[in-house]
Amino acid sequence: MNRAELVKEIFSKKSFLSVGLDTDINKIPKFLLDFEDPIFEFNKRIIDATHDICVAYKINIAFYECLGSKGWQSLEKTLNYIPDNLFTIADAKRGDIGNTSAMYAQTFFQTYSFDSITINPYMGVDSVTPFLDFTGKWAILLALTSNKGSQDFQHIQENNEKLYELVVRKSFDWGNEDNIMFVTGATHPEELGGIRKLAPRSFFLVPGVGAQGGDLAAVVKAGRNEEIGLLVNSSRGIIYASSDESFDKAARKEAQKLTDQMGEYF
Amino acid sequence: MNRAELVKEIFSKKSFLSVGLDTDINKIPKFLLDFEDPIFEFNKRIIDATHDICVAYKINIAFYECLGSKGWQSLEKTLNYIPDNLFTIADAKRGDIGNTSAMYAQTFFQTYSFDSITINPYMGVDSVTPFLDFTGKWAILLALTSNKGSQDFQHIQENNEKLYELVVRKSFDWGNEDNIMFVTGATHPEELGGIRKLAPRSFFLVPGVGAQGGDLAAVVKAGRNEEIGLLVNSSRGIIYASSDESFDKAARKEAQKLTDQMGEYF
Repeated sequence: MNRAELVKEIFSKKSFLSVGLDTDINKIPKFLLDFEDPIFEFNKRIIDATHDICVAYKINIAFYECLGSKGWQSLEKTLNYIPDNLFTIADAKRGDIGNTSAMYAQTFFQTYSFDSITINPYMGVDSVTPFLDFTGKWAILLALTSNKGSQDFQHIQENNEKLYELVVRKSFDWGNEDNIMFVTGATHPEELGGIRKLAPRSFFLVPGVGAQGGDLAAVVKAGRNEEIGLLVNSSRGIIYASSDESFDKAARKEAQKLTDQMGEYF
Repeated sequence: MNRAELVKEIFSKKSFLSVGLDTDINKIPKFLLDFEDPIFEFNKRIIDATHDICVAYKINIAFYECLGSKGWQSLEKTLNYIPDNLFTIADAKRGDIGNTSAMYAQTFFQTYSFDSITINPYMGVDSVTPFLDFTGKWAILLALTSNKGSQDFQHIQENNEKLYELVVRKSFDWGNEDNIMFVTGATHPEELGGIRKLAPRSFFLVPGVGAQGGDLAAVVKAGRNEEIGLLVNSSRGIIYASSDESFDKAARKEAQKLTDQMGEYF
């Protein structure tokens, strides 16, 4: 999905919500365990209940990988079930030397046809560029993440430039706002505004609203641009809103709360 | 596998060689494509030909993942085939927020019973610590990698300390030389000596000998400690030494060249 298509979807739905499918076999409603593929069954119902009000699904690969080859089958079915007009994110945090990153790109863009993948930039240029060679596909680079550990390394500073700022600046030597996005955690709205100055036209994937405590209004204030330029993700706050048979309705209700708030910014 | 067992294996074999199973369906000898599982068949023959002269196998997850659920089956068969006295490395470069890193740890230490996994430290403390809770298992943190892109971010410096040095120093707040190793590329022997000063008792996983141009003698000079403290990995230089039916013999010959050289350091 290219930039124009994504922006069109956002403005048509008045939503920039990404729903995170961190689907954990130990957390889904118990009645689903009677189905042949409980993970897919859960995702299917979440997608049915939310696809008209969100613009993206972020699939957290860890939660599928931990089930072995069966998990990858659930992932594939889920990906195939997501309607084509929604943007799909492989939240995989990959990145390796060039020939290996090329294999990861093949995996997530060809074997599985995701629109985008999250990339850890620590290994630099050749770990990122193999993901930029696919038309309509995106590398989403970790800049400033939403977790506690983001304080450990991402803030170290040389010549008045922090590591996460250097990541953003340097990435423009490799790609542009049509094939690179950045992860900028909702838990740091003030820094998010700084990143917006460095990357005025780029999309940001913003995790951490909801379970991790980030605030939507602060994120929008600091980070929006004229195309919105944000994909705000919520995972646990939506998909685990209830653990009974009507979990999908509860999920929609939580998603709707966010999109109602988002609607005010159009 | 704990530290004492690994050291014992190294001294008993007079080898600190890790063989990298970057097994690419497009690069293996053509006759193997007639087998039901060509990837496993290739690995099996490489393992048969080398397990008595190496001490570790490093499985590059990208090369299996790109084949979908079938690739994970080949990976599992390969892992099960490796004799118990050899140290196994999931070269996966994982790392995410705490609850997700915990899933990755479960995947590689429980669903698949690897001894160790390579971890990208960019996301800090909670991305690393979930891997440290398993007795006899190891997190191998990227410090200074062997690739061109290692120059982009790993060398940025605050208060006279480079990012890769900070990673090493800070990791001792989280774990110790019994559950953390470091990736230190063979292509930077001078910096490798500096890392040895910061982590005198730790094991280093040293990729980049062979195809990437690193020099074994320089690595040993800069990095060995009294327990050797090194796992030197070669992947392409060994497993693709020949593409005919006797590829396994050719692989052993290349592995033997390295272990002959290694033998001189005991």
